[in-house]
Amino acid sequence: MPTYDELKIGNKASFSKTISESDIYQFAGITGDFNPLHVDAEYAKTTVFKERIAHGILTAGFISSVLAMKLPGPDTIYLSQNLIFKSPVKIGDTVKAEVEVLEKRDAKKIIRLRTLVKNQHNEIVIDGEAVVMT
Amino acid sequence: MPTYDELKIGNKASFSKTISESDIYQFAGITGDFNPLHVDAEYAKTTVFKERIAHGILTAGFISSVLAMKLPGPDTIYLSQNLIFKSPVKIGDTVKAEVEVLEKRDAKKIIRLRTLVKNQHNEIVIDGEAVVMT
Amino acid sequence: MPTYDELKIGNKASFSKTISESDIYQFAGITGDFNPLHVDAEYAKTTVFKERIAHGILTAGFISSVLAMKLPGPDTIYLSQNLIFKSPVKIGDTVKAEVEVLEKRDAKKIIRLRTLVKNQHNEIVIDGEAVVMT
Amino acid sequence: MPTYDELKIGNKASFSKTISESDIYQFAGITGDFNPLHVDAEYAKTTVFKERIAHGILTAGFISSVLAMKLPGPDTIYLSQNLIFKSPVKIGDTVKAEVEVLEKRDAKKIIRLRTLVKNQHNEIVIDGEAVVMT
Repeated sequence: MPTYDELKIGNKASFSKTISESDIYQFAGITGDFNPLHVDAEYAKTTVFKERIAHGILTAGFISSVLAMKLPGPDTIYLSQNLIFKSPVKIGDTVKAEVEVLEKRDAKKIIRLRTLVKNQHNEIVIDGEAVVMT
Repeated sequence: MPTYDELKIGNKASFSKTISESDIYQFAGITGDFNPLHVDAEYAKTTVFKERIAHGILTAGFISSVLAMKLPGPDTIYLSQNLIFKSPVKIGDTVKAEVEVLEKRDAKKIIRLRTLVKNQHNEIVIDGEAVVMT
Repeated sequence: MPTYDELKIGNKASFSKTISESDIYQFAGITGDFNPLHVDAEYAKTTVFKERIAHGILTAGFISSVLAMKLPGPDTIYLSQNLIFKSPVKIGDTVKAEVEVLEKRDAKKIIRLRTLVKNQHNEIVIDGEAVVMT
Repeated sequence: MPTYDELKIGNKASFSKTISESDIYQFAGITGDFNPLHVDAEYAKTTVFKERIAHGILTAGFISSVLAMKLPGPDTIYLSQNLIFKSPVKIGDTVKAEVEVLEKRDAKKIIRLRTLVKNQHNEIVIDGEAVVMT
């Protein structure tokens, strides 16, 4: 993992996963978010999405994963995250969470990063920024 | 559930859950976030937290749960969420996610809400705001 | 279950299961092995396997299952296992783990077994041997 | 991740996790290995182990995780693994899987590694070797 001093503006990292029904069901089971959009296929057919979609916060979890596992890595302390949900994620979609260093605040070793999640068609599903401390 | 027209500024709802080790381990398993702070008790002892803590985004999932299950309810479409992580959540802590209607934008039936997660000591663990559409 | 004395060279037992996406995703979630070969359908398409495959050690788990549940049964203590991974296991494949007694070492009630996992086309996916004590 | 050419004899990597009851129960659920040693606390009390222990193959999964996620990394194809189970892993134990490059066979880009899993007391719980191709 890069140290704070080694990190440069523009450094990037990513993590990809194909979203399964079991991901969505387990996330519902942890959080209690049983919105029928996520767990009721009959209801979902009647909506603009036409089928069950993943929880936005589940998808945001992959941002947390890149921050912790790759950039900046395990010693990261999460200070804030903003999330703009742009497109739905369906079962079988493959999402790629990407983070990019935007700014370093040396006094407190704070890093601001662009955080994007895209699908297999390169559409943005979540846009936003994170602030972390290392 | 209240309809959009029935919702009033100041309306509140909440959801509480005691955080278990299995919540944290399953969330790591879904997202790939195996930060040792979350899954390595020996490492966690050496940190400022002294023990394993929950992923911030896991805890944010309870906000999603209140929005979808209670206020505004199942037809909610999540537009954005910002999250400020203020305090850690440890295994055995009981968190309460609370949402409160701050603003209604009638043209598009958009609702802005304060979103707070507190622990059993009434400390804020996550502060922030959500914007949803009904 | 047979006792040690009842067991004979050549005795066999087996266990079969169709491998689901959720088996693979949960195993990734337990172990942290998010190799894109297992969890990224887009990446897997670009490989020689053409689609996501199960973790080899997941498939090896069915050998452990036969040893513990059928032959020699619950009192088994696992001393060693060697595994030769011969073919991939894809989502929807049905694997059959078979064990066969090769040798008994009476002084310590140690049993050596051939351990094979085959798929529904009778191809060997894992070959190897186990040594257990009862 | 290091390329094959960058890898040197003696290179090491590791992954650590505290073993939870939910890890063991999920692994039992995937594999069908419900040996009472793993899932029956009353039975386990009557054995030499005194309490429920993790499946050996579950613990071996962390070796797979290091090989795929760190060294040699995602393009790794697993050819073989031998496992010698030396000590039990109990709920709450923190295991560290370590791999070390022992040999490189350049003709086929095959790598042989020592694979060790240790507990928090630095005792070896699994010893063995892996052979992978990159």
